[in-house]
Amino acid sequence: MSTTTPLSPTPRSTVRRLGDRGRTDRADLYAVLDAGLVGHLGIVLGGAPVVLPTGYGRDGDTVYLHGSTGAATLRAAAAGAPVCFTVTHLDGIVYARSAFHHSMNYRSAVVHGAARVVTDPAERLRGLEALTEHLAPGSWTATRQPDRKELAATALLALDLTEASVKVRTGPPGDDEADLASPVWAGVLPLRTVVGEPEPCPLLPEDVPVPDRVLGRRV
Amino acid sequence: MSTTTPLSPTPRSTVRRLGDRGRTDRADLYAVLDAGLVGHLGIVLGGAPVVLPTGYGRDGDTVYLHGSTGAATLRAAAAGAPVCFTVTHLDGIVYARSAFHHSMNYRSAVVHGAARVVTDPAERLRGLEALTEHLAPGSWTATRQPDRKELAATALLALDLTEASVKVRTGPPGDDEADLASPVWAGVLPLRTVVGEPEPCPLLPEDVPVPDRVLGRRV
Repeated sequence: MSTTTPLSPTPRSTVRRLGDRGRTDRADLYAVLDAGLVGHLGIVLGGAPVVLPTGYGRDGDTVYLHGSTGAATLRAAAAGAPVCFTVTHLDGIVYARSAFHHSMNYRSAVVHGAARVVTDPAERLRGLEALTEHLAPGSWTATRQPDRKELAATALLALDLTEASVKVRTGPPGDDEADLASPVWAGVLPLRTVVGEPEPCPLLPEDVPVPDRVLGRRV
Repeated sequence: MSTTTPLSPTPRSTVRRLGDRGRTDRADLYAVLDAGLVGHLGIVLGGAPVVLPTGYGRDGDTVYLHGSTGAATLRAAAAGAPVCFTVTHLDGIVYARSAFHHSMNYRSAVVHGAARVVTDPAERLRGLEALTEHLAPGSWTATRQPDRKELAATALLALDLTEASVKVRTGPPGDDEADLASPVWAGVLPLRTVVGEPEPCPLLPEDVPVPDRVLGRRV
C-alpha cells in the first residue's frame, strides 16, 4: 500500500469519539508506529481481554511481533484469534480552567486484525531484523544474529496494517467560553522521552567504546 | 487492603513468562500505577479485543477510569464485561551482544477484573478528583469543578486492584556465556520522560503567572 491508501475501511477502525482528532492518512499511521518503542497487544483469553506490552517492528504494511513460543497470548494470537495492537505517545498534559477540560496531548495508533504466524525462513529473518532495528538501529548487523536454537524458541507474528485508526490531540485546552475570563492558568506542559548516559554491561571489557549506534540514538 | 496484601491470587494474574521478573508486593503495584499518566484499557467488543489509551486515577485499591457516556468501550465496561488495564513504563533499551538478547527495561502493571459503574454522587466526585489529581496535581482545587451537565456527560468506572500482576526488568543484558568475549558493546541506554517549558493557552490574559503546580510538575 502506498502512503496515500486511506485508513479506516471498517466501522471499528473509524474514530467515533471526538472525530476531529481522527487522522486518515497512512503516513500518519506509519509516523505514530515508527516513533514508538513499545505497543500494547490485546487478545481474548477465556473470554476476557489480556493487554500486554510488547516490542515490535514495521516493514511496509506489516507489523512484526515476537515472543516466546511458550507464551499463552502469543499462542492464542498464532492460532488466529483477533488481536488489537495499540501504540500511544503522550505529548503533553493539558491544563484547563475547569477540571472537566483537563486532557492530554497524544498520538495513538490502533490496529485491528488477526495475526499470521511467519514460517518462511527468509521472512522470519526479515521480521526479526525489523524488530531488532526498530528497538536498536544498527544492532542487527553489529551483533550476533539468531542461531537455530534461538530461532526455534521465537514465535514471529505478522499483523497487516489494513484495519487501523490514528488519533491525535494537539494544542491548548478546549475550555468553555464562560470560563475564559477565569484567572486560572491554562495551557500545555509538553512531555518528551529522552535518553540518558549509556550504562555499559559490567561484564564488558574496558576497551570497548560506546558505538555511534548507541551514542547517537534518539527516541 | 494494606500494602502487604499479596498480589496474584489467580492463575491469570500470575506472571508465567520469565517469572523472575514478577513482583508480588502491593507496594510495587501502587508504585507502577502512581508513576504513570496513561494506561491501556482492553475490552472485548463483538468477540474481538479493543485496546485504547486512557487516563486514570488511584484511590487506595481502586483505579478510576472515565470517559464519555457515548463511548462504546466505556458502555461495554459499564455493562460488566471483563476488562484488562495495563500501565507500562519504558526505562531503557537493553543492547546485547546478540540480536536475540536485545531487550527493554520496563515496569508494567496488569489489572484484571470487571469494572463497576460509580453512581454514588460522593464517590463520583472522589473518583473524578483522583483522576484530575493524578494527571495534574493541584488542579482539582485550583480550577472549576464539574457542573451538573459535565457530570451527566461523564461515565465513571471503578476497577478493584484485587487481581493484578507487576513485572519489572532492570539491569544489563542477559547474554549467552559464549558471547561474553565478543568485542560488541553491550549495556543499557536509559530512557526517561521529562517536561518542557509550559505553553500558555493563547486565550490566557497576559498577567496570569504559571502556577507552582505546573512549574514544579515532575513526571
